Amino acid sequence: MLTVKTSSEAEEIIFDTFGQIKMNTEDVEILSSVGRILAIDIVSTENVPSFNRSTVDGFAVKAQNTFGCSDSIPAILNFKGEVLMGEAPTFEIGKDECAYVPTGGELPAGADAMVMIEYSENYGDGTRAMLKPSAPGQHVTFIGDDVKVGQAVLHKGTKLAARHIGVLAALGYDKVPVYKKPVISVISTGDELVDVTESPKGAEVRDINSFTICAALEELGCEYRKIGIVKDNLPLLESVMTKAFSESDMVIVSGGSSVGVKDSTFKVLDKIGEVLFHGIAIKPGKPTILGNVNGKPGFGLPGHPLAAYYVFNLFVKPLIKNMTGANNTDLYNKKNANLTLSIPCNHGREECMGIKMKNENGRTMAEPVYAKSGLISVLSDSDGYIRIARDCEGLSQDEEVEIELF
Amino acid sequence: MLTVKTSSEAEEIIFDTFGQIKMNTEDVEILSSVGRILAIDIVSTENVPSFNRSTVDGFAVKAQNTFGCSDSIPAILNFKGEVLMGEAPTFEIGKDECAYVPTGGELPAGADAMVMIEYSENYGDGTRAMLKPSAPGQHVTFIGDDVKVGQAVLHKGTKLAARHIGVLAALGYDKVPVYKKPVISVISTGDELVDVTESPKGAEVRDINSFTICAALEELGCEYRKIGIVKDNLPLLESVMTKAFSESDMVIVSGGSSVGVKDSTFKVLDKIGEVLFHGIAIKPGKPTILGNVNGKPGFGLPGHPLAAYYVFNLFVKPLIKNMTGANNTDLYNKKNANLTLSIPCNHGREECMGIKMKNENGRTMAEPVYAKSGLISVLSDSDGYIRIARDCEGLSQDEEVEIELF
Repeated sequence: MLTVKTSSEAEEIIFDTFGQIKMNTEDVEILSSVGRILAIDIVSTENVPSFNRSTVDGFAVKAQNTFGCSDSIPAILNFKGEVLMGEAPTFEIGKDECAYVPTGGELPAGADAMVMIEYSENYGDGTRAMLKPSAPGQHVTFIGDDVKVGQAVLHKGTKLAARHIGVLAALGYDKVPVYKKPVISVISTGDELVDVTESPKGAEVRDINSFTICAALEELGCEYRKIGIVKDNLPLLESVMTKAFSESDMVIVSGGSSVGVKDSTFKVLDKIGEVLFHGIAIKPGKPTILGNVNGKPGFGLPGHPLAAYYVFNLFVKPLIKNMTGANNTDLYNKKNANLTLSIPCNHGREECMGIKMKNENGRTMAEPVYAKSGLISVLSDSDGYIRIARDCEGLSQDEEVEIELF
Repeated sequence: MLTVKTSSEAEEIIFDTFGQIKMNTEDVEILSSVGRILAIDIVSTENVPSFNRSTVDGFAVKAQNTFGCSDSIPAILNFKGEVLMGEAPTFEIGKDECAYVPTGGELPAGADAMVMIEYSENYGDGTRAMLKPSAPGQHVTFIGDDVKVGQAVLHKGTKLAARHIGVLAALGYDKVPVYKKPVISVISTGDELVDVTESPKGAEVRDINSFTICAALEELGCEYRKIGIVKDNLPLLESVMTKAFSESDMVIVSGGSSVGVKDSTFKVLDKIGEVLFHGIAIKPGKPTILGNVNGKPGFGLPGHPLAAYYVFNLFVKPLIKNMTGANNTDLYNKKNANLTLSIPCNHGREECMGIKMKNENGRTMAEPVYAKSGLISVLSDSDGYIRIARDCEGLSQDEEVEIELF
C-alpha cells in the first residue's frame, strides 16, 4: 500500500508530474475575455496619447507668451482659430498666438501649454486675453506620456478584469488571445448518494460534491462536465472514468476513496493508470488519491463535502491555475486578520480550520468555525480557512493568521 | 447652474432617489446560480444529517459496553450484522452487541458510539473483540448535529459561491431564487471616438469606456447593452438615450459631461428627465452627472477613462449592489496595507489615488501609482485605489490605508 504523504510531498508530486501541462490558446472577443487568462504579453505598438492632448477646455499657447500675465496685466494673444474635437489642427501657433482646444483635443504645433478658459477673456477684436500664466506642459499630455511604443502594459497570465479590458480596448485589441478553458469531468461515487432533486430515504444523502466542485471549477474559469452520481460498482465506474479521461483534461472523483471495502476510485485509477499517492496527512482530507492516466491527472477526493472542498482548494486549484497560467489571482484570495479565539495544538497532523471574517470595532478579525460535523454548516459559515502546520503548538488569541478566502 | 456636490452629498442624493429600486427575483438552475445574488433566506426544512451517521469504518456499539476494554482485555461483543451504505439498518443494537457500519453509514438504533475497525478483531465465532473503549457520541454525527430544521443557513443578499452551492445542494435546492440581473445600457459620446476595431486618425481616440464599463457590469452580475459610440449630436443622443431608458434599468453615458460647449449628456438628461447634480468635488471625476428619467438613474461619467472608472466604482457600483441586494462582496474587494511612499496633501478636494500591491519582505505594501496622464497606464498598473479625504493633510510612508481593489 502507498504511504501517506505530507502536504508538501503531495504538492511536489502533483507539480513534478503535471506541472508541464499548459492549455492551448484561443482568440475571443474582447468583452468575452472578462475573467479569462491572458495568453501573451501585451506590448503597445502605439503611443498613447498619439498626439499632444489638452486636459482642459481653454487656449493652446506658447507658455512663454503668458509668463508674468495676471488679471491686471493680461497677455493679449491673437486668436488663431478653434480646434475641433477629434480633428487634427490645420494651423500652427506662433509667437503671441492662441487657439481654442477642448478637453481631449489636440494642441496645434507650436503650442506647449494650455490656459484654462476660466482664465481668459474675449475682447471681441480677434484677440484673447490670458489672465494667468501657464508653465510649459501645463494641462497637456504629450505624445506617449501615458504609454510608449514597445512598452509592456499587460502580462501573460493576467486574469482579465474590467480595467485590463479598458487597456486592451485602448490599444485596439478587439480579439484577445487567452488560454483555453480546461475541460474537467466531475464524478461522485457512493451507493448512499441521491441527486439534488430527490428526497433522501433511510441513510441516503444528496450528492453535494458534484455541485460544490463544478461551481468551484466555474469560478476558476474551467469548463466542467458534471457526470453526477455513479453507483459503487467497479466495472461501471471504470467505464465512466475511462470515457471521462478520454474527453477531458482532468477527472475529479469524490467519494469512494476511504481505505475501506469499497475502495473503487483507487482500484480504477490503479487499473487504467498509475496511482501516485493514496493519502495526505491533512485534516480533514486524508483519503485523497492522485492518479496519472495517460498523462492526465485524476484526483480522488474524500466523500465528505467539507474535506473534498478543502482538498480541492489545497491541491487541485493550484494545478488548475498552473494549467491555465493564471498568476494574479492571489490578491483577492488571501487576507490577513487576527484570531478572535485561541486554537489548540493539532496533534501532529496538518489541519485546515474554517474561518469566519468578523468586524469588531472596525478591526477585521478571524473567528475559527468549530463544528462537530462539518458536512455543510462549516461551508455556510466560513469565509475561508487557515492551514495549521503539523508542528504548530497552537495559535493564540489575537495572533495574525493568513486566511485563504473560499 | 447646479452646484458641485461633495462625494457624501452625491451618495446621499443617489440613495435617497434610487435606493428603493430592487430587482425582481427569478429561479435559476442551481449551477447557473454561481455568482448570482440569493433572493431569500435559506432556512433548512430538514435535519442534516437526517440519521445518526458514522464518521469512521468500524463497529456501532453501546459505548458503555466498551468501557475499560483494552488490547489485553478486549470487550467481546456479538456481531449483529452489517449496515450497507445508504441503507437504513433493519436491526437494533442491544447490550453486548455490535454491527459493522461504513463511514457515512447509519448507526442502528440502540448504538451510541463507533469503534474504529483498526481497534477490533474478528475471532470468527460470531463475535468481535473491541480493543479500545469509545465514549458516547464518539465518531458519530447525530441527527441535526450539522443543521437543524428551522436553522437559517444562507442569507438573502449572499453572492453565491461554490461553498454556498454545496449548501443549497445538500438541502435539495435544484432551483435557486436569485435577483434578476439589472439591464444597463452603456453609451459613449464624443466626436473624437472611434471603435476598437479602427485605427485612430488625427486626434481621434478609441472608445475605451464602453469596454471598461461593460466589463465592470459583467463582473457585477449585470446584463449590459453596449450601445457604443454616439456622435456628439443632440437630437441623435436624445433619441438613443430615450430608447435606452425605455429598455433598461439604468443608463450610463460617458464623455460629453464637461461643462464645455458640447454638454450634451447634461442637456439630454435635463430635457427627458431631471438633473439631480452636475459635478462632484472629487479628483479625478468632477464632471459627473446624475439624472432621473422616469424613476430610472442615468449617470453621465467623465470621458476620461480613468476618471470614468473611478466614478463608476465610487458612485455607480454601490447603487447597483443595492439594486441587486448584494451584501457580502466587500470581503474580496477591500484590503489594508501600508504605504511605500508618502502622499502629499491633496489641496482640499477629495482624491482617488491608484495603488499597486507589492510584496516587500513578506509584507503586503501599497504603492501609490503616480502618472502624469492616467489614460490607461494607471488602469494597467493599479490593483485598486484609495480615497484621500478632502481635509487630509497628506499620508505618511508606512501609514496603513484601506484599498478598494478594482
